[in-house]
Amino acid sequence: MTGDLPSNLLEQAVQQMNTLPGIGRRTALRLVLNLLRRNEQEVETFANAFIRLKKDIHYCRYCHNLSDTDVCPICSSHSRDKRTICVVENVQDVMAIENTGQYNGLYHVLGGIISPMDGIGPKDIEIESLVVRIDSEPINEIIFALPTTMEGDTTTFFIHRRLKEVNRPIRFSQIARGMAVGNELEYTDEVTLGRSILNRQSIE
Amino acid sequence: MTGDLPSNLLEQAVQQMNTLPGIGRRTALRLVLNLLRRNEQEVETFANAFIRLKKDIHYCRYCHNLSDTDVCPICSSHSRDKRTICVVENVQDVMAIENTGQYNGLYHVLGGIISPMDGIGPKDIEIESLVVRIDSEPINEIIFALPTTMEGDTTTFFIHRRLKEVNRPIRFSQIARGMAVGNELEYTDEVTLGRSILNRQSIE
Repeated sequence: MTGDLPSNLLEQAVQQMNTLPGIGRRTALRLVLNLLRRNEQEVETFANAFIRLKKDIHYCRYCHNLSDTDVCPICSSHSRDKRTICVVENVQDVMAIENTGQYNGLYHVLGGIISPMDGIGPKDIEIESLVVRIDSEPINEIIFALPTTMEGDTTTFFIHRRLKEVNRPIRFSQIARGMAVGNELEYTDEVTLGRSILNRQSIE
Repeated sequence: MTGDLPSNLLEQAVQQMNTLPGIGRRTALRLVLNLLRRNEQEVETFANAFIRLKKDIHYCRYCHNLSDTDVCPICSSHSRDKRTICVVENVQDVMAIENTGQYNGLYHVLGGIISPMDGIGPKDIEIESLVVRIDSEPINEIIFALPTTMEGDTTTFFIHRRLKEVNRPIRFSQIARGMAVGNELEYTDEVTLGRSILNRQSIE
């Protein structure tokens, strides 16, 4: 039902909405027509939110997390443990970990993971800035919280090796892998279950 | 995972995206972060498409369909049958009928249907402009293509009665109701099936 639109302006708006991931042409049309029912002021508020975000957003000078300021609220907080850094792939991962309420250290957002298939090498992500951080600040522990995929493991391995070259007394760890909470053994994939047995955790 | 965002600018952009129908907060965040990965020029093109649409769009002077010009391409076309008007609720309905390729007349977009529950009365939709059209142009037929709901039927009934007052030799019709093509009797609801029997169509 979205073949020929009666207006080029409408067509362009639909095409732009259609560039968003997971928004097909039909949904794009529905969203654009919804916008069209709002008044001009509301549409401007809608559109300008994205322009302002792109223009004025900062990336934290230390951890590269999104921030309104030069240093993000986490890095500038006095109540966080500044001797622990959790290495994550992207901004969403910071939010995911923050929402668990289980972590009180700092972060380091790589902005991607090493993926030769996608042409992303070590130089394309924030590895050297992490080297500078552990070289200039007293860090006790680096926790790798990268995806449990081949790319994630490769990235953890690469960064671990690079950071060891700095030769500081730092503990390196990665977040636990095993069965997800609430799952049944019967329905857990073999690789995960196999590793869960190998990496079994002591109970007191 | 979208509780506290690390930036107010991000929060505002997510809130705006979240105002679109069917876009929850989590999806809104995903879409906004996708926008953030584009360059400034691309984000402006994205945002400005909606501002321009709202600022510069016209509604056709005759049929109230969306248009880039004062009179829409359908109303100004020389190859359309100008003696037939199809009355529809909204702009999407025009597109849906156009995409069937089965109709060559004009349209009249009401911009809503009568719905006392939603506080929409006859004055709130484009009924009087339709009265003017049939009073000033030679129209042979008015086809009602409104939703097959109580509100749709009420609107058809109301407009039909109003147009008859103009006292012109116009044929009034409504689009056929019955079993959808490709359906089985067994799974068709009783009301539709009952009416399909009552309104059975002759075969030669």
